[in-house]
Amino acid sequence: MSHEARIFIGEDQQIIRSDPLQRVVIFVSMAGNTLGSHLRLTTFGESHGNSIGGIIDGMPAGVEIDTEAVAFELSRRKPGQSKLTTARRESDQVEWLSGLWQGKTTGSPLAFRIANKDARPQDYDMMQDVYRPGHADRTYQEKYGIRDPRGGGRSSARETANWVVAGTIARHLLPSELKCIAYVDQVGTIHAPTLSTPDATEIEAHPVRCPHEATAQKMQDLIERTKKKGDSVGGAIRCVVTAAPAGLGEPVFGKLPARLGAALFSLNAVKGVEFGSGFQAASMFGSTHNDTYDAKGEPTSNHAGGSLGGLSTGTPIEFRVAFKPTSTIGKSQQTIDLSGQVVQLEAKGRHDPCVVPRAVPIVEALTLFTLADLYLISKTDRL
Amino acid sequence: MSHEARIFIGEDQQIIRSDPLQRVVIFVSMAGNTLGSHLRLTTFGESHGNSIGGIIDGMPAGVEIDTEAVAFELSRRKPGQSKLTTARRESDQVEWLSGLWQGKTTGSPLAFRIANKDARPQDYDMMQDVYRPGHADRTYQEKYGIRDPRGGGRSSARETANWVVAGTIARHLLPSELKCIAYVDQVGTIHAPTLSTPDATEIEAHPVRCPHEATAQKMQDLIERTKKKGDSVGGAIRCVVTAAPAGLGEPVFGKLPARLGAALFSLNAVKGVEFGSGFQAASMFGSTHNDTYDAKGEPTSNHAGGSLGGLSTGTPIEFRVAFKPTSTIGKSQQTIDLSGQVVQLEAKGRHDPCVVPRAVPIVEALTLFTLADLYLISKTDRL
Amino acid sequence: MSHEARIFIGEDQQIIRSDPLQRVVIFVSMAGNTLGSHLRLTTFGESHGNSIGGIIDGMPAGVEIDTEAVAFELSRRKPGQSKLTTARRESDQVEWLSGLWQGKTTGSPLAFRIANKDARPQDYDMMQDVYRPGHADRTYQEKYGIRDPRGGGRSSARETANWVVAGTIARHLLPSELKCIAYVDQVGTIHAPTLSTPDATEIEAHPVRCPHEATAQKMQDLIERTKKKGDSVGGAIRCVVTAAPAGLGEPVFGKLPARLGAALFSLNAVKGVEFGSGFQAASMFGSTHNDTYDAKGEPTSNHAGGSLGGLSTGTPIEFRVAFKPTSTIGKSQQTIDLSGQVVQLEAKGRHDPCVVPRAVPIVEALTLFTLADLYLISKTDRL
Amino acid sequence: MSHEARIFIGEDQQIIRSDPLQRVVIFVSMAGNTLGSHLRLTTFGESHGNSIGGIIDGMPAGVEIDTEAVAFELSRRKPGQSKLTTARRESDQVEWLSGLWQGKTTGSPLAFRIANKDARPQDYDMMQDVYRPGHADRTYQEKYGIRDPRGGGRSSARETANWVVAGTIARHLLPSELKCIAYVDQVGTIHAPTLSTPDATEIEAHPVRCPHEATAQKMQDLIERTKKKGDSVGGAIRCVVTAAPAGLGEPVFGKLPARLGAALFSLNAVKGVEFGSGFQAASMFGSTHNDTYDAKGEPTSNHAGGSLGGLSTGTPIEFRVAFKPTSTIGKSQQTIDLSGQVVQLEAKGRHDPCVVPRAVPIVEALTLFTLADLYLISKTDRL
Repeated sequence: MSHEARIFIGEDQQIIRSDPLQRVVIFVSMAGNTLGSHLRLTTFGESHGNSIGGIIDGMPAGVEIDTEAVAFELSRRKPGQSKLTTARRESDQVEWLSGLWQGKTTGSPLAFRIANKDARPQDYDMMQDVYRPGHADRTYQEKYGIRDPRGGGRSSARETANWVVAGTIARHLLPSELKCIAYVDQVGTIHAPTLSTPDATEIEAHPVRCPHEATAQKMQDLIERTKKKGDSVGGAIRCVVTAAPAGLGEPVFGKLPARLGAALFSLNAVKGVEFGSGFQAASMFGSTHNDTYDAKGEPTSNHAGGSLGGLSTGTPIEFRVAFKPTSTIGKSQQTIDLSGQVVQLEAKGRHDPCVVPRAVPIVEALTLFTLADLYLISKTDRL
Repeated sequence: MSHEARIFIGEDQQIIRSDPLQRVVIFVSMAGNTLGSHLRLTTFGESHGNSIGGIIDGMPAGVEIDTEAVAFELSRRKPGQSKLTTARRESDQVEWLSGLWQGKTTGSPLAFRIANKDARPQDYDMMQDVYRPGHADRTYQEKYGIRDPRGGGRSSARETANWVVAGTIARHLLPSELKCIAYVDQVGTIHAPTLSTPDATEIEAHPVRCPHEATAQKMQDLIERTKKKGDSVGGAIRCVVTAAPAGLGEPVFGKLPARLGAALFSLNAVKGVEFGSGFQAASMFGSTHNDTYDAKGEPTSNHAGGSLGGLSTGTPIEFRVAFKPTSTIGKSQQTIDLSGQVVQLEAKGRHDPCVVPRAVPIVEALTLFTLADLYLISKTDRL
Repeated sequence: MSHEARIFIGEDQQIIRSDPLQRVVIFVSMAGNTLGSHLRLTTFGESHGNSIGGIIDGMPAGVEIDTEAVAFELSRRKPGQSKLTTARRESDQVEWLSGLWQGKTTGSPLAFRIANKDARPQDYDMMQDVYRPGHADRTYQEKYGIRDPRGGGRSSARETANWVVAGTIARHLLPSELKCIAYVDQVGTIHAPTLSTPDATEIEAHPVRCPHEATAQKMQDLIERTKKKGDSVGGAIRCVVTAAPAGLGEPVFGKLPARLGAALFSLNAVKGVEFGSGFQAASMFGSTHNDTYDAKGEPTSNHAGGSLGGLSTGTPIEFRVAFKPTSTIGKSQQTIDLSGQVVQLEAKGRHDPCVVPRAVPIVEALTLFTLADLYLISKTDRL
Repeated sequence: MSHEARIFIGEDQQIIRSDPLQRVVIFVSMAGNTLGSHLRLTTFGESHGNSIGGIIDGMPAGVEIDTEAVAFELSRRKPGQSKLTTARRESDQVEWLSGLWQGKTTGSPLAFRIANKDARPQDYDMMQDVYRPGHADRTYQEKYGIRDPRGGGRSSARETANWVVAGTIARHLLPSELKCIAYVDQVGTIHAPTLSTPDATEIEAHPVRCPHEATAQKMQDLIERTKKKGDSVGGAIRCVVTAAPAGLGEPVFGKLPARLGAALFSLNAVKGVEFGSGFQAASMFGSTHNDTYDAKGEPTSNHAGGSLGGLSTGTPIEFRVAFKPTSTIGKSQQTIDLSGQVVQLEAKGRHDPCVVPRAVPIVEALTLFTLADLYLISKTDRL
C-alpha cells in the first residue's frame, strides 16, 4: 500500500485523545450491528443519512421471495399512516443489491438498501445543544464525543425498518402454517382482553392495532387526548406464535426466551419482556402454575408461554413487551444544555404520541428472525 | 488417522434416524454453551454427572483473584443453607485446572471444575417414565430422543454454580467502587418496599435475602406454609448496580438491556425481566416518565433504570426479574407417562419450595459477568 | 405478520428436494461472508449483479478517512490498466451508504456499494453448459443446485474490490509509520531478488509490480508470450510489513499467521502461503534457522518472518503467497458439459493471463485488515 | 454481591499500569482459545500446570465414542515413543468430565481433562532469565509482562494433546469411508516420493512415520546424526483425505483451504501450508495446471488439491505443511538475558530433534476437526 502519505491519524484527533480531564472520549465505535447466529442480519444507517440497509447472511438458495410481503410489512411500520402516528413519511422502498435473481434467493448474501428521502434535519436544529430527557444524547456525547446532529444517529427507530425487512425474509424459512401475530395489548391504563388466537384482519382494521374494537376505540381516544396535550403515553404489545416447531432453542445460553429477550430488548423504548405467566408467576403457587397434561397429552394451560427448559414445546409462544412513552414531547421540560445551563425544552419535530401501534410489525419481525435463526441452528444439531 | 476400523456411526443409530414417524429425533446436540463476547464463559456438566465446570476466556493476566470470594458466593448459592431451601448439600469446591498461578491470573484461560459429590440419582428413578409438569422432559425427549435419567441433565440449576464462579471472577475486572446488590423483592403476593440502596449485610441477615426485616419474616412464613402443603411459590428479585461506568453497551444489537436480558432469561424459572419503570412504563405519560435533569445536571428520577439508547448512563442500573414457582412439588399432579397414560405424580426429591433466595447470588453473577464483558467490549471501541 | 397467504415454500422446490437420487442438493446458502473478529467486514455481491459492497463494523468514530486513498487502491486492483491484464473496465466508484459524515467516521457501521457498470454476461453464455476446468462450476452445481449463469457468482474475483476498500479503511487504524508493501516475486519460473525493503514507487513504476526492473521486464515478456498463446501463467507475491506493533496475535487459535493465513487463503487462486523461511525451513537445521539476538538485542536474521508463538515480534512480517495460473484460458481444453458429454472449451471472455500484478493491492488489503483486527483485539486484552 | 471488601484491583498493579515508559504492558489476556464455528473446541492448560483439557460444544447426542481410538491417537502424539523423540513421558490419560454416558454422547458439551504428571519445571530454571532464540519468550515478556517460568505456558506444544482428543471425537461425525492419512514427506533435504494413497500401516511401521521404507531409514539416520550434534532439523508433512463429501466449505471467507489453513497455522513451528500444486503452481501454465475432465467426468489430475472455489470437489484433499527445526537445541547459541546482556545458551531439557513424526497425528486431528465443523455448517446451509 504505497499511498501512505495521505493516510494518517490526524493531529487534532490526537489532541482530543490526550484531553487531561478525559471527559471527552472519542474514537469510539458503535459496534454490535449483527443479530443472529446462523442466520445473521448486519445493518447500517443513520436516521438522516442517505440510506439505511443491511445484509442477511445464511439464506438458502432457491427460495421464492415475496417482495410484496416485504413492502406490505414495511408499510405497516411506516409513520404517517394515521393521525395517531407521526406525519413523517418514510418512503421505505427496498432496493435489493444482491442475493435475489428472478425472484428467488441465490444463496449469496441478501443485501438491501432503503433510501432516506424525507429527512428534515432542521427539525432537530434547536435540539442540538440540549440533552433531551429520556434520550441517549448525553451518554452518546460522553461516550462517542460526537453526537449526530441530524437526529438520533444509530439510535434512531428508523433502524427498525431494516429489521422488518429481515423478519419478513426470515419468515420464508419457517413452516407456512406458523403464524406470528402481535397486537396492542395496552395503551396507558387501558388493557385489551387476553386473546389466545388474535385475528390479523381485526388487528389491522383499527389504526391502534388492537383487535378488540371497543378497547381500540378507547385507546385511540387516549392517544388523541394525549397528543393534544403535547404529551405521549406508553403501552404494551402481546405476541402469539402458533404452530412453531417444538424443540427450537438450546438448553443453556441459547434458550428461546434468552434469544427472543435479547432481540426484543434491542428495540428502542422497551422496558420489559415477559413470557407466558410473566410477572404474574411471582405471585403464583406451583400447583396452579404448572401446566399439567390432560388425558390426550395436551397441556391444560400455557403458563409456560411456549417454552420449557429454553426449548419451544409446541404450545403457542406467548409474550408481552412493555414500551415507555415516547421521550420526545411537545410539553415543556426542564433539562440542561451542553454547557450545563438549565433550559426549557419544547420539541417541535414530528413524533409519535404512542409508539406501540407502529411497533407491532417490528415485534413480529424480531420474533420471526429469531425463530428462523433457531430453526437453522436446530438443523446443525442433528446428524 | 489409521484407527478407522473402530470408528463408525453405529447401525442401530441409523435405524432410529429413519423412524418413519419422525417423532423421535436423535443425534441432536445441546449446543450454545458459551456466554459473552469478549469475556467468554463456556460451561459443561450434567446435574448428576461426575462434575460441572467451565472455561473463562479473555481474563487479563496479573489479576489477583480472591478465591475466598468465589467460595463465599458459591456458599450463598448452595442449597441446604436453611430450612427454606432444599436439603441437598452441594459441596461446591472449586478446583482450578489452569489460568491461576500463585494467586494471580496468568492470562491463559481460567478453567475450573466442581465435583458432584452428593448425587442421589435414585430420587429421580420414579420420575423416569413420566413427563413432569413444568419441566422440559417431554421436549427433551422429543428433541434429543434421550432424556438424562439422572436428573435435569443440562437443564439442571446445578449449572448455575458455574455462573457464580464466572461472575465472581468477572467482578475483578470492574471498578472496585461498583456495587451489584440483588435481593428478594417479592415472594408470592408479598412485596418488599423499593430500596434505592439495598444493604448487603441486611440482605444476608435473613435466609430469604430480603433486607426489610418485617417483610422478610412474612416471606419466610409464606414459604414455610407452602412447603408444608407440598407446594411451591414464585417470587421476584430486584437488582441495583451503583457506580457502573457510563457508556457500557452498544447502540444497536449490543444494548445493555439486551445483553443483560439474554443473560437473565438464561436462568431457569425466569418468566420476566424489566428495567427501571418496567411494565409500569406502559401506563405512564412521557411528561412524568422522562428523567429530567436538575440544575446540577443530575437526573431527578431513574425511570430509565440506568440505560438510555442501550448505553449505561451512570445512574444506577435497576431491574427486576420474575421467577415462576418451582415446578417440582410434593402435591399430586396429573400428567402422562412416556406411553401416553395418565398418571398422578408426587415428587419425592429434595426441592426448594421457593427459588428466589438462592437465585440472588446467581442474578448478581450474571449481571457482573455481562457488565465485565461490556467493559472489555468498550475498550475495543476506542482507538 | 398477517400477510401469510403469499409467503410459502414453493411446491416445485419441495419436489426438487425429494429427488430420489439426491444428486441435486438445493436450498443451500453461501454463508460465511464475514471476515474478522473485532473489526468485521461483511460483504455481498455477485460478479454480474447490480452491485457489490459491504459493511465494516467496529470502526471508531472521528477518524478522518482518506477517500482518495480508497480510490487509488481500487484503481490498482482494477482490470484494464495495461495490456498485461484483462480489458474489462470495472468502474469501481465507491458509494458510501453510511458511517461517514463530513469526511470522518461517525462510529456507526461504514457501509459501501460499488455498482457493476460493465457487466457483459453474454461473454459467459457459451460457458453456461460446460464445467470449466479449474473453476468451481461443477461443485457449485452439485452443492447449490443452481449456478449463477452471469459469471462466477459469489466466487468471482470481483468480490476482492470489497476487500480493497475494507483494507484501506482498516489501514487508518494502524500506526502511520507502519508500511505494508507487497510486490510480484515470481511469474512462472522467473524469480525476483528477495528485497528486505521493497520500494512502493519502484513497484508501481512497472505494470507487473515487480520493483526489480530487469526482472520486471522478463516477467512482462513471459506474460505477453503466454497471452499470445491463449494460455495463462502462475506467480507469487511477497509482502513485507514494517513497523507493525509487537504483540499482535493470540497464542493459541488467534495466532497472527493463522489469521493472516485464513485471510490469504480466502483469495481465489491462492495455493500456498509461507511465513519467513517458509518451506525452506523444512530443509534447515535449528542452529542456522533460529534468529539469534546480537549485542543490541536485535535479531540477526528474520527466519521467523515477524512472529513467534503466534505473536508479532516487531521484526518485519514477511510472507509469500503462491497463485495458480488463471483457470480461464483461450487454449482449447477438454471438459464435459452438464449432460456429461465431452466437449472442447475455448474461452472467449476478457481474462487476465496472469493474476499476480492485480493481486498485489488485494494481498496488502487483506493483510492490513487482519492486522487492524488483531490491533483492536489486543486492546481488549488489556485492563 | 456483598463480598466487596476482598475484591479489588490491586494497587501495585495500578502502579505497573502507569509505567511512564509503557514498555511493560500487563493485564493482557491470552484469548482466542476456541477453534471452529458450529463444532467448537475451547481449550485450557499450561505446559506444566496441573492439567490441560477442553470442551467440545456442538457434538450431537447418541454417538458411540471409541475411547480406545482417542487413547490410540494420543499415544501416537506422545513423546518418548522412540529415540527419535524427546524422552518426556506424557501420561495423557483422558478424564471425561461430562457429555459421555454409557459410552455414548449425551449431546451436552464433551469436557475432558488430561493431568500433567511428569512436569519437570527445574529443566527450565536455567532458561528463566534468557530469551531463547526461536521462542516467543521476549514477545510474551513484552506483551504479557509475565512469562510462565514453568515452560512454554500457553504456547507449549502440550496443548496439541487437546487437539488430538478433539480431532478423534470430530472424526465420529464424518462418513466412515472417509480416510485422513498424514505422513512425513520431508526431513531436512530428504524427500519421500509423492503417494496418492499412503498406507496407514506402512506409516506406523517406522518411527519417523514415512511409509516409504528406504526414505524413512535415511530420515531416521539424519535425525539421529542431528541429535548427536545437539542440533535439530525441519521437515514437512503431507496429508491426503479421501472420500470427503463434496461441497464442504463456503464460497467467500469460509473456504475449505482458509479454514484448514487457519487450523494448521495454529500449530507451533508451522511455516508454510500449500494445497495441491501449492508453490509449484506459481511456475505453471494454465493449460497444464487445469484439471481437465475425462470422458467419465473424472478429473485427470489433482492440482486443485481437492477444492475449487473454496469447496471440496470430491477429489482427494491434499496438502503439505512445512515445519521449522525445533527451536530448543543443545548447541550453544548467542542470545540476551532479561537485563539485555549477551549470554550463551545451551538447552538441557528433553527436546525433540525433529517434530514432524509426532506432528503427524496432530495434523490429522486438526484436519478432521475442521472437516467435521464444515460438515455441520453444510447442514445449516440447507433447508
